Amino acid sequence: MRILVLGGDGYLGWPTAMYFSNADHEVMIADSLAKRLWEVECGAIPLWPIPPLHQRVRLWKERTGRSIAVRIVDIATNDRLLYKILEEFQPNAIIHYAEQPSAPFSMISRRKAAFTQQNNVIGTLNLLFAMKSRCPNAHLVKLGTMGEYGTPNIDIEEGFIEITHNGRKDTLPFPKEPASFYHLSKVHDSHNIMFACKVWGLRATDLNQGIVYGIETEETKMLPDQFRTSFHYDAVFGTALNRFCVQAALGVPLTVYGKGGQTRGFLNIQDTIQCVDLTVGNPPGLGEYRVFNQFTEVFTVEELAERVKGAGRHLGLHVNINHITNPRAEQEQHYYNPKHTKLTELGLKPRQLNDVLIEEMLEAVLRAKEHVNEQVLYPTVKWREQ
Amino acid sequence: MRILVLGGDGYLGWPTAMYFSNADHEVMIADSLAKRLWEVECGAIPLWPIPPLHQRVRLWKERTGRSIAVRIVDIATNDRLLYKILEEFQPNAIIHYAEQPSAPFSMISRRKAAFTQQNNVIGTLNLLFAMKSRCPNAHLVKLGTMGEYGTPNIDIEEGFIEITHNGRKDTLPFPKEPASFYHLSKVHDSHNIMFACKVWGLRATDLNQGIVYGIETEETKMLPDQFRTSFHYDAVFGTALNRFCVQAALGVPLTVYGKGGQTRGFLNIQDTIQCVDLTVGNPPGLGEYRVFNQFTEVFTVEELAERVKGAGRHLGLHVNINHITNPRAEQEQHYYNPKHTKLTELGLKPRQLNDVLIEEMLEAVLRAKEHVNEQVLYPTVKWREQ
Repeated sequence: MRILVLGGDGYLGWPTAMYFSNADHEVMIADSLAKRLWEVECGAIPLWPIPPLHQRVRLWKERTGRSIAVRIVDIATNDRLLYKILEEFQPNAIIHYAEQPSAPFSMISRRKAAFTQQNNVIGTLNLLFAMKSRCPNAHLVKLGTMGEYGTPNIDIEEGFIEITHNGRKDTLPFPKEPASFYHLSKVHDSHNIMFACKVWGLRATDLNQGIVYGIETEETKMLPDQFRTSFHYDAVFGTALNRFCVQAALGVPLTVYGKGGQTRGFLNIQDTIQCVDLTVGNPPGLGEYRVFNQFTEVFTVEELAERVKGAGRHLGLHVNINHITNPRAEQEQHYYNPKHTKLTELGLKPRQLNDVLIEEMLEAVLRAKEHVNEQVLYPTVKWREQ
Repeated sequence: MRILVLGGDGYLGWPTAMYFSNADHEVMIADSLAKRLWEVECGAIPLWPIPPLHQRVRLWKERTGRSIAVRIVDIATNDRLLYKILEEFQPNAIIHYAEQPSAPFSMISRRKAAFTQQNNVIGTLNLLFAMKSRCPNAHLVKLGTMGEYGTPNIDIEEGFIEITHNGRKDTLPFPKEPASFYHLSKVHDSHNIMFACKVWGLRATDLNQGIVYGIETEETKMLPDQFRTSFHYDAVFGTALNRFCVQAALGVPLTVYGKGGQTRGFLNIQDTIQCVDLTVGNPPGLGEYRVFNQFTEVFTVEELAERVKGAGRHLGLHVNINHITNPRAEQEQHYYNPKHTKLTELGLKPRQLNDVLIEEMLEAVLRAKEHVNEQVLYPTVKWREQ
């Protein structure tokens, strides 16, 4: 198949591109590289340096004999180039990671909120129009987020819910209560994509993904210094598990936001790739808009911190946990029971988050410890203050 | 009260501004005037000329002794001026009509779709940030649309629905199935506003309005040639009733899209103003996001055409009805039972659409008949073709 990876310079995009290339697919990466700028704007960089995309692709070719094409394009502002790329490459599947991915980034200021919604919503809108015009049979695999749903007091279904009301029944989009301008941008995307499938007969799968952890895939291990993917631990682009590992390695307390009862879905980066592969291999029919909830386990933030504390103890680290004022506006104790059977039905074999993996992450962080910038570990973006 | 009318140059904005001014409120209009450009881009202009805003405001002062302040600002692109206006005027209520209001316009092309979402979503986002910063106690009265809901097979509630699912219960945002990029922009707005109320403690009422008809209010009648509001009959900015009146006056067949079983909520322009007045007079608490469904009657498009045919016969016009291929993607026969009790509970006294009103519209159109451009009556924007 011809597979276009939008956002192929990123944490998930790069391993995804290598995976499909290694599996004999024809892969093209398109990326604006803008995320590297957004990181610098926040004073944050990945824990270990990530070589330029062109260099990694060249080394990938040397190492595997396989070519990955690269196009530099901002899909939110350069629609003409996007149309041209789709016309020339004629992808069978488009895996779309090319969005501003940080909730705190979107809450920094009016400018960042507007930028996030403009970038994500208009970028995806341009993609829908470009697909309709240039490759209407392609399968859009769009990365959404479990955060689109928020934390309702009922079970979360996969995209749609059957509602019986006043004696009548319909299956309707699951109501969304997103909790940042970033998460809102993903909800807006979902509505736009659903409409495009309905009115134009496009096909799309919206992967409402949990929080991804992990730093290694089969392909990153082939040439670790060059092929590894980015590891963010800062309060803007990093996720809780990464931050906790870095704090444990530095010997400073793990910072749990508020009570720590916030419950979320999680998955290993290798399972992200497995899920995307299963999705690409089982496309929906033309006109169909599917939603899969993509995660394998559910943890509270407190549980994550305890897991890191335990793994740290095993490595001889003395780890404390601090509860700090929650910079976000979110429920800290809540019901959470999201369904996630559709990918299992397609054959997903989930990996569990285990102590071995956390210890491997801790060891990797310990090796890079001198590069840590402790300043960026602590939240400065507050949801209620703009 | 100090009342800011965003989009005060428009069909609803201008009569709203006059109404509140006449009722002794301190009124400011802010408008980018861009809608006049969008009309020209589509080769469409109102049936009768609308004097420049500044001229109308000057004549309003001459006629009533009352001042309406005017600011020219594009809220989607000039956030700094928007902040300044809110800071200086310190409105108690902000009535927000300042969006691109046409579904067909949003379906013309990628450019128009992206423009509509950018203009509406970012404009409203800027407003939310500006309110938070400069007048956090003000009441945002936002014009949404009944089209946000689409046509589900269950009763439509006002914004929120109690869902019982697997033995648990929650009240969640009513699921949305909008049917154009314009309607989608309003859904995006609703989600953004709901979030801003929750996280920042703003107060807002989202008025999910039906299709407005009518050309006269108490204030437009005070100096009809100058104070009348715009009448659009073209296939992009006009609504069905207006188009049917113009077609009846010209003696050409009324063009019903498809089967004509499309069912929608409607209300008189005087009831729009009554609803906005009731809303402004009964603000929600800080942090509250309310949704009112704002319409008074439900008709099918076919019924509307029959009503115009009947009124036309009464005036001696020979009126035919043609069913033409539906340019839109929409259900043409469907269940439709949206609730609309909240404004009634606040005291709304609805006007019915009666034959006298249709005959008055027909007579007004007959007087302006020589200005009609027949070309713009027929749909050229097709939902499935971009």
